[in-house]
Amino acid sequence: MPQPVEFWFDFASTYSYLTAVRIEEAAAAKNVSVSWRPILLGPIFALHGWNTSPFRVYPIKGEYMWRDVERRAEKLGRPFYKPGANDARDFPQHTVLAARMALIALDGDAGREFCKSVFIAEFEEGRDISDPQTLVDIAVKAGVPGDILGAATSPENKQRLRADVERAKALKIFGAPSFTVGEELFWGDDRLDDALDWAAR
Amino acid sequence: MPQPVEFWFDFASTYSYLTAVRIEEAAAAKNVSVSWRPILLGPIFALHGWNTSPFRVYPIKGEYMWRDVERRAEKLGRPFYKPGANDARDFPQHTVLAARMALIALDGDAGREFCKSVFIAEFEEGRDISDPQTLVDIAVKAGVPGDILGAATSPENKQRLRADVERAKALKIFGAPSFTVGEELFWGDDRLDDALDWAAR
Repeated sequence: MPQPVEFWFDFASTYSYLTAVRIEEAAAAKNVSVSWRPILLGPIFALHGWNTSPFRVYPIKGEYMWRDVERRAEKLGRPFYKPGANDARDFPQHTVLAARMALIALDGDAGREFCKSVFIAEFEEGRDISDPQTLVDIAVKAGVPGDILGAATSPENKQRLRADVERAKALKIFGAPSFTVGEELFWGDDRLDDALDWAAR
Repeated sequence: MPQPVEFWFDFASTYSYLTAVRIEEAAAAKNVSVSWRPILLGPIFALHGWNTSPFRVYPIKGEYMWRDVERRAEKLGRPFYKPGANDARDFPQHTVLAARMALIALDGDAGREFCKSVFIAEFEEGRDISDPQTLVDIAVKAGVPGDILGAATSPENKQRLRADVERAKALKIFGAPSFTVGEELFWGDDRLDDALDWAAR
C-alpha cells in the first residue's frame, strides 16, 4: 500500500509550477495519492536572512534559473512565460491571497484544478495572481463553489495557513517544491520521481 | 555530430562525486565526449559572500544534502561515506592540490581514472584527499606517469588552474557540478542527462 505524498509549494515558485503541471499524472502512474500543501516561502526564507527569493538575492542563480525553467518547460511541452523586465509584474509575485484561497479550494474537488490554473495563469499566461479578481475568476472557472474570497480571508483560514507554514518549518522544508513522505523530505522538482518511488515502495 | 560537454567540478563537492562515478558511461551511451574540468569553488563562492560551502552557510540545506546524497548514492549502488562529526576530517575538504594534480593527470590517459578515484577515496573510503601522499598513491594506482606532484605544483600549472577558475566565472558557473555545451550552462548532478541530450541533439 503506497504512502501518501505531501506536495509543498508557493505559488511564486517557478520550479513548483514545473511540478504542479505534471504531479497528478506522475503520481497516478505509481498509484500514489498527493496532498497539495500551499505555503508561503517568505517566512521560511526569512530564517536564512533572505528578504526575497534567493534568485533575487543571488542574481547569477536567478539568471540561470530562468534559462533552466525555460528549457525544462520546453521539454514538458509547456508554453512558459518568463516575467520580463519590460513588464510591470514582478518576480516573485505576492501569493498570500492565492495560498489562502487554495486552502479553501482544496477542501473540495476543484482544489487541484484551481492550484494548477493559478500556476498556469502566472507562468504561462503572464497574469497577475496577486489580483483578487483574477483569482476569483480562476476559482469560478475551476468550479470552486461558494464565496471563496470571504472564506479565504476569514481569521480561521489565515491561521490555518500560518499553521501549515509552521509545520513546513518543523519538517525542515527550506524551499519549494518540497515533497514529504512521513518525515522523509525531498526538495526540488528534480526529486518528484524519487519522492513518488519512496512513497510507492 | 554531438558536441563535447565540459564537466566542471570541485573535488570537495558531494554532488560532483555523484556525477563523476557515472558520467563516462552515461556520455558514451549518447556518443558524447566529456572534458573533465577540475576547478575550485572557493573563489566562486566568494563572489556571493560565502567563505565556505553553502551547505555550511545554510545548515538546514547541509543537513538535507547529506540525506539526499546518501539516498542518491544508494540508488546508484555506491557505498557512500558520510563525513561524520566524530571524524577529524572536515567538510568541505581542501582540494587545491587534488585539482592541480588532476590537471596534470588529465593531460594523459589516466586522468579520468585519477579523478574518479579521488572522489571514491573521499566519499566512499573516508580518506583525506588534502594529503599529498594519499593523492600520489591514487595517481600511481591510476597509472599516472612521472612526477605528478612536482608538475602539479609548478608555477605554470598553478596558473593554469587559476585560468580555468576564471573561465568558469566567465561562463557564469556558480556551483558544481556544472556542465557546459558551448555557452549553454547546466547546473547540478540532476542536469547531467539534460546536458548530454543537449550535446547530442
